[in-house]
Amino acid sequence: MTNKKETIAAIIIIGNEILSGRTRDLNTSVLSKWLNSIGIKVDEVRIIPDAEDVIINTVNELKKKFDYVFTSGGIGPTHDDITAESISKAFSLKYEIHKNAYKILEKHYGANEFNEGRQRMSWMPSNSNLILNPASGAPGFYVENVFCLPGVPSILESMLPSLTNKLVGGEPILSKTISLRTLESEIAKPLKQVQEKNENVDIGSYPFFRKGKIGVSIVLRSRDQSKIDNCSLEILEFIKEKKIAIVNRD
Amino acid sequence: MTNKKETIAAIIIIGNEILSGRTRDLNTSVLSKWLNSIGIKVDEVRIIPDAEDVIINTVNELKKKFDYVFTSGGIGPTHDDITAESISKAFSLKYEIHKNAYKILEKHYGANEFNEGRQRMSWMPSNSNLILNPASGAPGFYVENVFCLPGVPSILESMLPSLTNKLVGGEPILSKTISLRTLESEIAKPLKQVQEKNENVDIGSYPFFRKGKIGVSIVLRSRDQSKIDNCSLEILEFIKEKKIAIVNRD
Repeated sequence: MTNKKETIAAIIIIGNEILSGRTRDLNTSVLSKWLNSIGIKVDEVRIIPDAEDVIINTVNELKKKFDYVFTSGGIGPTHDDITAESISKAFSLKYEIHKNAYKILEKHYGANEFNEGRQRMSWMPSNSNLILNPASGAPGFYVENVFCLPGVPSILESMLPSLTNKLVGGEPILSKTISLRTLESEIAKPLKQVQEKNENVDIGSYPFFRKGKIGVSIVLRSRDQSKIDNCSLEILEFIKEKKIAIVNRD
Repeated sequence: MTNKKETIAAIIIIGNEILSGRTRDLNTSVLSKWLNSIGIKVDEVRIIPDAEDVIINTVNELKKKFDYVFTSGGIGPTHDDITAESISKAFSLKYEIHKNAYKILEKHYGANEFNEGRQRMSWMPSNSNLILNPASGAPGFYVENVFCLPGVPSILESMLPSLTNKLVGGEPILSKTISLRTLESEIAKPLKQVQEKNENVDIGSYPFFRKGKIGVSIVLRSRDQSKIDNCSLEILEFIKEKKIAIVNRD
């Protein structure tokens, strides 16, 4: 169902703390929803360790395959923050102090508090474009189509609005969810028929457990609202026939 | 810091609902923690769409690079559940009814309720090994080093204990967390020195925000408890010198 004219993106989550299971990744969800809203579809996510060779290889592979690549994590002040240096190597660029980032950080912390660790956050690939950080000062950066953001979800989220005008997307991806009091196996057959008749709508079926009750959410996704509406009517038809209760629609 | 003798695994999360941001991935955390407990380290996670060619290529790439590959999602009864058929193609195996899985499902649902959608869940790569499902009946399966589990986290979790004896891991990966009332940039320099002196301990530094207060968690990971303990002592030393408060240790 992938349309080759779509604008597609990949996300690279850099961090041993996600791979070890200690921390749950929240950034994929935040980034994907925001990218969908500006017409960019996330087609792959990779979670990789804080290892220079892995970062370099993954960035080099994905920057060719996708219109945009977003990295999250590894741009703080400590020894395990190696994203900026790795991106420099991936692009064969010098890793050096970014004068503007240095000024922003010096102003944010005050000259007396601008210690070695904090100064480290001004080191970036040569001539990087900055991504301003309204939450905590330290800017992210981008080189060509690779955008480097921090790992802390609230800070990452605060930096997205400033990028909106820098990305070229398509029509936003629209979705509609119909949640039913049924089992997947009860609706598998008619749902398959609706999918076959509606090639331009991506129909997903997801079982859920809420307040001790089970159900199924049907999610319709497309760039075309009228196609979602048509598809939705066909689904409501077989739901009515089968006397299945609707939990909610949105 | 990757030791080549380690047993390493990759996780493939299959599902448009995770890529779209609609649903947050909980399975990476569950699987990684469990794998760590039996001495297997997760070194890569990929989140990919419900697309046959992508599933086949990803499985074929990762099953060579890793000791074990775990997939999550796409083994239910609906049209978008294409994992079993894709895995058959990845291994060039017939996609057919697994007699034992059929019997298990027929018994679980009762002959009268065993409809077409449910029967679909007994189709698997030829001669698959079953992974029993105490939560909802439908078994997962594995072929060589590729283990296919469902996407619903509570069901996936219920199926893991039965796998413990089928995987060969190493020593469990141990960890210790020291949470401090400080900023990353305050401890970056001494922490780097401790890391340089303790090559066999993986030291991560993670800022946190809890109850309106900021802090840093230092996480030490190793297979050797004495090395974690030594490293921890060196950290406690510079913390004391710098008069930094400890929030908790575990």
